[in-house]
Amino acid sequence: MAVQSSFDPQAFRAALGTFTTGVTIITTQAEDGSPIGITANSFNSVSLNPPLVLWSLAKKARSLPVFTNGRHWNVHVLSAEQEALSGRFATQGEDKFAEVELDSGVSEAPLLQDCTARFQCRTAFQYEGGDHVIFVGEVLAFDHNERPPLAFQSGQYALATRKPRNELRLATTPPPPDCSYTEDLLGYLLGRAHYQMLNALRRLLNNQQLDEHAFFILSVLCIRDRLTLDEINAFVSYTGHSASLASMRFLEGQKLVARELNGEDTRYVLTADGREASLQELALAKAVEEDVSDKLGAGDAMALKVLLKRLIAASDPGLPDLWAPR
Amino acid sequence: MAVQSSFDPQAFRAALGTFTTGVTIITTQAEDGSPIGITANSFNSVSLNPPLVLWSLAKKARSLPVFTNGRHWNVHVLSAEQEALSGRFATQGEDKFAEVELDSGVSEAPLLQDCTARFQCRTAFQYEGGDHVIFVGEVLAFDHNERPPLAFQSGQYALATRKPRNELRLATTPPPPDCSYTEDLLGYLLGRAHYQMLNALRRLLNNQQLDEHAFFILSVLCIRDRLTLDEINAFVSYTGHSASLASMRFLEGQKLVARELNGEDTRYVLTADGREASLQELALAKAVEEDVSDKLGAGDAMALKVLLKRLIAASDPGLPDLWAPR
Repeated sequence: MAVQSSFDPQAFRAALGTFTTGVTIITTQAEDGSPIGITANSFNSVSLNPPLVLWSLAKKARSLPVFTNGRHWNVHVLSAEQEALSGRFATQGEDKFAEVELDSGVSEAPLLQDCTARFQCRTAFQYEGGDHVIFVGEVLAFDHNERPPLAFQSGQYALATRKPRNELRLATTPPPPDCSYTEDLLGYLLGRAHYQMLNALRRLLNNQQLDEHAFFILSVLCIRDRLTLDEINAFVSYTGHSASLASMRFLEGQKLVARELNGEDTRYVLTADGREASLQELALAKAVEEDVSDKLGAGDAMALKVLLKRLIAASDPGLPDLWAPR
Repeated sequence: MAVQSSFDPQAFRAALGTFTTGVTIITTQAEDGSPIGITANSFNSVSLNPPLVLWSLAKKARSLPVFTNGRHWNVHVLSAEQEALSGRFATQGEDKFAEVELDSGVSEAPLLQDCTARFQCRTAFQYEGGDHVIFVGEVLAFDHNERPPLAFQSGQYALATRKPRNELRLATTPPPPDCSYTEDLLGYLLGRAHYQMLNALRRLLNNQQLDEHAFFILSVLCIRDRLTLDEINAFVSYTGHSASLASMRFLEGQKLVARELNGEDTRYVLTADGREASLQELALAKAVEEDVSDKLGAGDAMALKVLLKRLIAASDPGLPDLWAPR
């Protein structure tokens, strides 16, 4: 087999990286009893009957002799919450197992907790694979749960966003070809999603005899009390709503907000009723979120938040940090 | 090797499925010259030097003899746009290559177009893998591009949503522990993303001497002309805005909207100026979207739309279809 010396290794790596993978940690026990573990994304399933899986390990890896001599190893498909663990097991020299709690398994190989899936294996074959050794393992035991798994693509951690076909068309018919507007417009999708999520909240606000405008002001004061009108507006104005003296007077009349006078400054604080009203709104927003997360699935709800945060960071007009210490 | 007859194959399959993968089509040429291709997600990289990749094929697959006898095969990492192609090559019996345009490669194996990455291989090893054969190929040539790749997880097509760590925290400091509000609230993220995207549009609306309210009405009329006030409101009211006779009179005064009288019905149509104003707004919304997509990356922008559509479908209060034929 000719070595492709003309290959640009970086370009080859980049091309390989486009293939999305999960992230696993593979563990075994050294002869002296010490636990060994490495992060690998070269895992894949091979056979259902007999149950076989495979992964590859670099021949120059320090742990190679342990894996070639050992017979048992465990594959842990990491959950989206285990990014830090993945990083730790990808780094040499750290005490990787410090404070890591283990389960006991069918072999002495360390069995990590809180993963999405685990496969406890015994080496079935070791195959030559260029600068790697391919380990094929017979699966002796396995388990899995509903934790959203961590993914990896083009050198970055990722989440898999599922795209079920029947949930992706909003309109029953595609828009007419001469229409420039489509339901695929990001601004439309964001607006519609936002307003639909607000729907339940609007009913609560109606019962509270409040409106969105009041909701934004109360929320800001719930996070950060004793603000001047200008400060409130610095946090609220990006919504297109602005708090006026009249809005504040209305909330005072409802006994939700009170004024504090400090010299020339007028600062607003929530009353106990005001805090109660705001926390009711928050509780409802959380309930709506929970319902949506159930419908999308936990991993997809997580992915949506990641994307919205990235979009917000990318389009931030420079809003002040509502949570910053004074 | 003992066969684990006690394994529940469905549970084993489900556990394996939690490991996210890309989707590939692997092609070769039969001895009679006919093109062969199958969808596989058992692909993975093995070695950089020599450049090796692997995948597994079921021993009962009809194409097994062709692959075991053939020396050359191509791996195509599919793009997110190639879901239909993936389905076609996963199904037996169809004329898979009908109307599929091919590139010419280093061998006679069919080389598909518009993929995210391609690896042209020659079999280096064939290994025993239970009910599968593991093919290890030496990569003779490869190419890749920026098309977002298709992913697969737990039996469903997916998109990988990258989570770059430094783009995920909005506030400089975490919220105080006694604060019930956090920036992780989905409703907050949706609202903030929506309003920030509206920012540029608001400036345009200002110049047009219009407001959001007018924007929604014009957009609806731009998609679907000749609506009564009630019909306009059926499409607009979910935003919390409602069109009144006064709003319509204002738009008539601005010469953006005109009235048509049909018996008792008053229907509104856009004037040429009204259509022009609406298309300016749409063009701006598309420019904002393009900017955001550049910042997120094409695949992540696509994933965001998928998630928003699913959220909208999951929380749809039953809005009428704006694009439905009458």
